[in-house]
Amino acid sequence: MDFNEHTATEAVQNSFRETPDPRLRELLDALTRHVHAFVRETRPSVREWEQAIEFLTAVGQTCTDTRQEFVLLSDVLGVSMLVETLNEQEGGTESTVLGPFHMVESPQHALGDSIDLVGEAEPCVVSGRVLNADGAPLPHAQVDVWQCDEKGFYDVQQPGSQPPGNGRGLFRTDAEGRFRFRTVLPSHYPIPTDGPVGRLLNATRRHPYRPAHIHFIVQADGYVPLTTHIFVAGSPYLDSDAVFAVKQSLIVDFARSDDEEAAERAGVRAPFRHAEFDLVLSSEPA
Amino acid sequence: MDFNEHTATEAVQNSFRETPDPRLRELLDALTRHVHAFVRETRPSVREWEQAIEFLTAVGQTCTDTRQEFVLLSDVLGVSMLVETLNEQEGGTESTVLGPFHMVESPQHALGDSIDLVGEAEPCVVSGRVLNADGAPLPHAQVDVWQCDEKGFYDVQQPGSQPPGNGRGLFRTDAEGRFRFRTVLPSHYPIPTDGPVGRLLNATRRHPYRPAHIHFIVQADGYVPLTTHIFVAGSPYLDSDAVFAVKQSLIVDFARSDDEEAAERAGVRAPFRHAEFDLVLSSEPA
Repeated sequence: MDFNEHTATEAVQNSFRETPDPRLRELLDALTRHVHAFVRETRPSVREWEQAIEFLTAVGQTCTDTRQEFVLLSDVLGVSMLVETLNEQEGGTESTVLGPFHMVESPQHALGDSIDLVGEAEPCVVSGRVLNADGAPLPHAQVDVWQCDEKGFYDVQQPGSQPPGNGRGLFRTDAEGRFRFRTVLPSHYPIPTDGPVGRLLNATRRHPYRPAHIHFIVQADGYVPLTTHIFVAGSPYLDSDAVFAVKQSLIVDFARSDDEEAAERAGVRAPFRHAEFDLVLSSEPA
Repeated sequence: MDFNEHTATEAVQNSFRETPDPRLRELLDALTRHVHAFVRETRPSVREWEQAIEFLTAVGQTCTDTRQEFVLLSDVLGVSMLVETLNEQEGGTESTVLGPFHMVESPQHALGDSIDLVGEAEPCVVSGRVLNADGAPLPHAQVDVWQCDEKGFYDVQQPGSQPPGNGRGLFRTDAEGRFRFRTVLPSHYPIPTDGPVGRLLNATRRHPYRPAHIHFIVQADGYVPLTTHIFVAGSPYLDSDAVFAVKQSLIVDFARSDDEEAAERAGVRAPFRHAEFDLVLSSEPA
């Protein structure tokens, strides 16, 4: 029988029936049904479909070693956050999106080190503990941190003016599960708008801003890795993050202090900011 | 309220509510719903979603001026053919997919010219008429033709060994609506398998072959442009085209002839093939 509006989906599903990997077959079967349903509902013209192909091609061609435009597209459609949410672990700190800027390895640092390699902005001290769901500290947990600078740029976005590794650090918690590092207060910032995703946001009158945050990936043996952010309380755009990543439980006060003694103890100059919070990992399923 | 499995879709739909172009808003609203429904149904792991992003990135990065891997992906998922089918015009020759090889302009030719610029294979004569739905001939209609050679390759796939424009031609019908050109019998062929779409076909045990065909785009003032193929009767893979493009009404006999006189009249040597068919355009909607 000819391929037509009514036989189309079954014909394509049948073509995948010999797929050896059952999960791949399940994914392609569902993909076929949902993409065909989208097309049947919206009935794109041939020209509209060509424009969709041109858009996806441009998204792929905007990707480089230091830029991931497809992650950005997934982010602004809320898909990254939906996937993250469906994989959420019970009992731990809430997770949020990885984002497109975790593309280089963070440099190893000792506890207390500064990940701010420039040293011009107001200092910020970040400290806390990595715990399990029962509240027990997890020594020697790996804490991978990355953030933009006080102007809103990641190191990989400014290879000319920021040193590589600026705003990134890989730490190990101490015997009490503590982590501590010095940095600058990250700024809110626009996601890159000079590519096809930026054109999409512009055409839909959406702003490209993300509220200020620090990224974390926390890992410890026997626990599910946690990918999350800590958001800066009071930052603009906490209620309209372009990538839908804010959870109320992840908003933390970055209090300003003028206390010279506290600054000296922390190895910074006053005034400075200080954020203190715990990151809780869920046990791996038995 | 936090973004979660239940609020996700509405949150993203709301983000598009200020889109000035109502059609773009409609498309993005539907895209959001269908992509989210796919994710909710299949619950991909974070790693699976990363693999999907890597696949789409590779598809985009495989595209060049002479290769369109996203069209190929749309083709093997039956989406191109579904879009084509939903845009089908009543009363004309059936349409089928454009395919990824219409990326260079066809050279202008006079009726009767050969589009085979190599001249080593058995010749083939293709002729017919462009008609309207009432059977009236359409003079001066534009007939754009492209095909692979007798070994299954398009000119753009073999820039070293095929002259540019080989297998392509732009013709105008004569006063009786007739077209006529010389060529070679196209072969069945595999779609390109050295990219991510080829890896997808391999992982799903799908063969990459298309039955032998000649592409046409026919245009005349006042009529809806027709994008279609003529398939060679008896070709392998007519029942399992990798891109789902076969319609029974488009299969044509390419009869072999040993008739020396007929060959001489047609400007070819015997034995030769001959296919004769009409292409019917639908009137533009009033």
